[in-house]
Amino acid sequence: MTGVKRKKNNVVWRKINSFHCADFKQWCLRRLPILEWAPCYNLKENLIPDTVSGIMLAVQQVTQGLAFAILSSVHPVFGLYGSLFPAIIYAIFGMGRHVATGTFALTSLISANAVERLVPQTSQNFTTYSNSGVLGLSDFEMQRIGVAAAVSFLGGIIQIAMFVLQLGSATFLLTEPVISAMTTGAATHVVTSQVKYLLGMKMPYISGPLGFFYIYAYVFENIKSVQLEALLLSLLSIVVLVLVKELNEQFKRKIKVVLPVDLVLIIAASFACYFANMEYTYGLDVVGHIPDGIPSPKAPSMNILSEVVTEAFGVALVGYVASLALAQGSAKKFKYSVDDNQEFLAHGLSNVIPSFFFCIPSAAAMGRTAGLYSTGSKTQCVLASIIVVGLKGMLIQFRDLKKYWNVDKIDWSIWVSTYIFTICFAANVGLLFGVVCTIAVVIARFPRAKTLNLTNLNEMEYKVKTEVEGESLQQVKIISINNPLVFLNAKKFHADLMNTIQKENANNQPPDDINKCEQNTLLNSTSNGTCNGETPQPYPNEKCSVILDCIGLTFFDYTGVSTLVQVYMDFKSQNIDFLLANCTASLKKAVQYCGHLESDKHIFFESVSAAIGAIHLNKNLSKFSDHSEV
Amino acid sequence: MTGVKRKKNNVVWRKINSFHCADFKQWCLRRLPILEWAPCYNLKENLIPDTVSGIMLAVQQVTQGLAFAILSSVHPVFGLYGSLFPAIIYAIFGMGRHVATGTFALTSLISANAVERLVPQTSQNFTTYSNSGVLGLSDFEMQRIGVAAAVSFLGGIIQIAMFVLQLGSATFLLTEPVISAMTTGAATHVVTSQVKYLLGMKMPYISGPLGFFYIYAYVFENIKSVQLEALLLSLLSIVVLVLVKELNEQFKRKIKVVLPVDLVLIIAASFACYFANMEYTYGLDVVGHIPDGIPSPKAPSMNILSEVVTEAFGVALVGYVASLALAQGSAKKFKYSVDDNQEFLAHGLSNVIPSFFFCIPSAAAMGRTAGLYSTGSKTQCVLASIIVVGLKGMLIQFRDLKKYWNVDKIDWSIWVSTYIFTICFAANVGLLFGVVCTIAVVIARFPRAKTLNLTNLNEMEYKVKTEVEGESLQQVKIISINNPLVFLNAKKFHADLMNTIQKENANNQPPDDINKCEQNTLLNSTSNGTCNGETPQPYPNEKCSVILDCIGLTFFDYTGVSTLVQVYMDFKSQNIDFLLANCTASLKKAVQYCGHLESDKHIFFESVSAAIGAIHLNKNLSKFSDHSEV
Repeated sequence: MTGVKRKKNNVVWRKINSFHCADFKQWCLRRLPILEWAPCYNLKENLIPDTVSGIMLAVQQVTQGLAFAILSSVHPVFGLYGSLFPAIIYAIFGMGRHVATGTFALTSLISANAVERLVPQTSQNFTTYSNSGVLGLSDFEMQRIGVAAAVSFLGGIIQIAMFVLQLGSATFLLTEPVISAMTTGAATHVVTSQVKYLLGMKMPYISGPLGFFYIYAYVFENIKSVQLEALLLSLLSIVVLVLVKELNEQFKRKIKVVLPVDLVLIIAASFACYFANMEYTYGLDVVGHIPDGIPSPKAPSMNILSEVVTEAFGVALVGYVASLALAQGSAKKFKYSVDDNQEFLAHGLSNVIPSFFFCIPSAAAMGRTAGLYSTGSKTQCVLASIIVVGLKGMLIQFRDLKKYWNVDKIDWSIWVSTYIFTICFAANVGLLFGVVCTIAVVIARFPRAKTLNLTNLNEMEYKVKTEVEGESLQQVKIISINNPLVFLNAKKFHADLMNTIQKENANNQPPDDINKCEQNTLLNSTSNGTCNGETPQPYPNEKCSVILDCIGLTFFDYTGVSTLVQVYMDFKSQNIDFLLANCTASLKKAVQYCGHLESDKHIFFESVSAAIGAIHLNKNLSKFSDHSEV
Repeated sequence: MTGVKRKKNNVVWRKINSFHCADFKQWCLRRLPILEWAPCYNLKENLIPDTVSGIMLAVQQVTQGLAFAILSSVHPVFGLYGSLFPAIIYAIFGMGRHVATGTFALTSLISANAVERLVPQTSQNFTTYSNSGVLGLSDFEMQRIGVAAAVSFLGGIIQIAMFVLQLGSATFLLTEPVISAMTTGAATHVVTSQVKYLLGMKMPYISGPLGFFYIYAYVFENIKSVQLEALLLSLLSIVVLVLVKELNEQFKRKIKVVLPVDLVLIIAASFACYFANMEYTYGLDVVGHIPDGIPSPKAPSMNILSEVVTEAFGVALVGYVASLALAQGSAKKFKYSVDDNQEFLAHGLSNVIPSFFFCIPSAAAMGRTAGLYSTGSKTQCVLASIIVVGLKGMLIQFRDLKKYWNVDKIDWSIWVSTYIFTICFAANVGLLFGVVCTIAVVIARFPRAKTLNLTNLNEMEYKVKTEVEGESLQQVKIISINNPLVFLNAKKFHADLMNTIQKENANNQPPDDINKCEQNTLLNSTSNGTCNGETPQPYPNEKCSVILDCIGLTFFDYTGVSTLVQVYMDFKSQNIDFLLANCTASLKKAVQYCGHLESDKHIFFESVSAAIGAIHLNKNLSKFSDHSEV
């Protein structure tokens, strides 16, 4: 007996085991998209074009890294690491095939907030280059990257937690207008942060709520300290960059490789800067300090994690949202799919692991949109111009406003208010506001939306009338409900239904009131109403049936069901038959239970035609047997 | 010229004036419902029964007032004022005709929280009866009622503010399960607060989060200090009260006036207590202190308002919600309507004005449900029994659980979780949780609900096929959407539509693939597909049209419209015609703008039949002119 049992157990166990194995393999494949595409990679066809675009991307990533490291208030060298590690990890775990993960303007700005708050830049720090640190850098710089890495680490942990909680499935709450407004607002913040460099002004680091306005207030107060040569260089850089960007777009269509234009630009910019010989010399020359190989890993300082929670949330949410929008955009364009949850994992790991290698927070940025291919420029105001022009793709989303206005005014207002919130506070506050706003709008729109299909009513009613006409004048109304029936629209449904019935009755009755009445009492002596309105029923002179087609009732809650029962009771008191067609089993059960209608099973019908047939039959029966069944 | 202008202005002014006057009169009528019903009051018919039930109600109100004043931790005499003033004010402003406003168990318990926190009961306070106060009461009692009045005042102000903000229209968010769970939870709190009296235990005042559990922990720790005589008296009282309540219900059906039973009970209870001669003598004998007339008004202490904000919000929300549920219940029963906003005003004023007359917070309680008609009992444990039995109507809502379980499991879980939150924290926390939960559930249900009407598809498709069959084999699919198309279900809509089309094609194509293909290429040489699948289109051998009936599309947002455009593009790339029928003007405009389809006006049709006609015509045209129009 035990042997048999053991054997059985063994079989079961093997089954479970094999099931688990297959399951685990499946799970791995889903979690490591690289295993899916790498074995099918066509070396012959794709290697050369991919290598070329890889090199182009590398140039772009490196120059972007420098710019965004400075934006993050850390030493430029860390931008290089930040361009390398996340890209490798995202390639393994990520699903967006046209998405380059690396340093990102919006997350850089958010982490700069933490860096400047915890390790503020004092004048003595700035001047003393003690070079005592690990990578030949000052303690001050090491402290700063420590904070940025901590933000990256905690942000990544938050993203992984969201993956574990499967919150990726909640991304449908992030509508296009909200994402567009949030990224535009964040881009506006980044531009604002660069204004001091563009104008060559010295300005304290300003942040916090309404910091946006304080920055511009400061600029206008100190408008005289603007350095004209910086302003001119900025304008020149911006013009050149925009032009080159346009040229790039032009060339991209004609020849596949745009590398030459980039190299030309870099060389030209370097020469120009060299000859112009300006006073700031902060940029590329520092990059000479880069040690060979990769730095030895070092855990980010865990003791400051609690102080960077706000920024970590900002990095986690803003980075994820902006990246997802890009990944989904490219997925739509090139017809593959992106798993929202997997992206949480990929970005989480791209933040956590690199944070041990002195990396700043990362996110995905498509080559085309963020950051130009340029730089090599040695002054901050040229770097600032590069950052600003790199955000062109985001800032240009202002154009979407016209589209939203024409498509849906409410979405337009959500865009505007989310943008304002992002500007006044921060990107994550704006995002939260936008989501809450979107939900509130849907909730508020529901109770006003029509719940019944009136056209169907008219068309079908006609059909039924012609069918039944010969026999009696009993009116059959077929109404279909085309909504879920929940607390949001239950009241409206009740009112709509009552209005429809009353309006129909008012329209139909007056002209041939007496005729109908006579005919009716002749034919249908069972409806216990006389013509003179002595009975309390509003429609005493005509027996009426209403069939509610529930095919469009997608889901319901308690309020909806109790409204349905309420309608049934109201109709019953008015001597109107109320039949339900196409109910799901759960709806049937709920209505029966809620209205104590266990015995009244004849109100549910499989289809509208079955319900009509039943009315027909009942009619005939009542004609013969004088038995009224309500 | 100026004369004419002035004349014109005069006319306009008079018009505005008369409009304003009529408007103002209308507004007054709406805001003072007493003006509506008082003039029509039928003295002859209603005066005697109303006087009788008024006296009954007065007895009930007074005895309730005593019990709830003690529950509020204030002197019992204030319960009498609290029964009088709010009732008068609600009669003027309120719309619930079967609702008696006065002291209320749930609001009393909430204000007790503020009273006990700000004016804690020390032993010396309890023993010294200095009688130095205004109404012949001690300073301690005056301080306590000051706090309760302040809670009432601020709660009323909050309710009036909600009236001004027209938040009454948001009450559809308060579903029956949430209100039921919240009131049941609050009733459980009240019962818990009375446990010490029921058991005759001395217990410190315990409140705050999880206070519920601390109270029972305390009871079990000190289970030995339970006074048996108190326990027995409590049980006896509860049994008597429940029995009398049942008898009352029985008598109510037979004779209209239930007064005798009440008087009998009061006298019996008084005699019993007198003979039992127990140690506590706190109840009715104190009422002897009542001064003649009404007390002179005194503003509640404004300096403590900021300290009672939490309790004021609790009183405002819980009082309003519980009262509204009762008012709507009676309105439904007796077929009149209650304005949600007006109720905010009525309850706000019923709290603010009485707060100047030493009243505790008030709310509506229907005679039948809250508080028994009884008392006259002199011991606290009898009063506690009265309070507990008075809550029977609320506690009995536990029975609803079974109903919710059978109707909708999700509403059941909302009930349970709201109840738990109310028990663990407070009634307003539970209410907030319940509302957020309800919204979250609807939001989460939407993306899973089906969006298309498949039955319609099948039925109508058949019809169309038979019509067109003679001419060609072009498939026309009619699909109706029966939902708003918003960000919540846009993705599902897209997937559903694609699945339906692909499934239909998969079902239809295999059997007569070659035949169709031959026929098709003969008839429709324009569809640039050959039979061997060399072209990228998935359905190259059959031209297919899809008509989307938008009659059920009640509203849309940007995400919905862009999904619709996406579907159009997808179909276009698969060489499928996509026609929209029954679009509203705004939807038409939005789709045209969003998809840059200003020129493609022939995708919109007035009705499904118009769209079918157009396909028909187009077919014939293409047969002759060989001109493909996608």
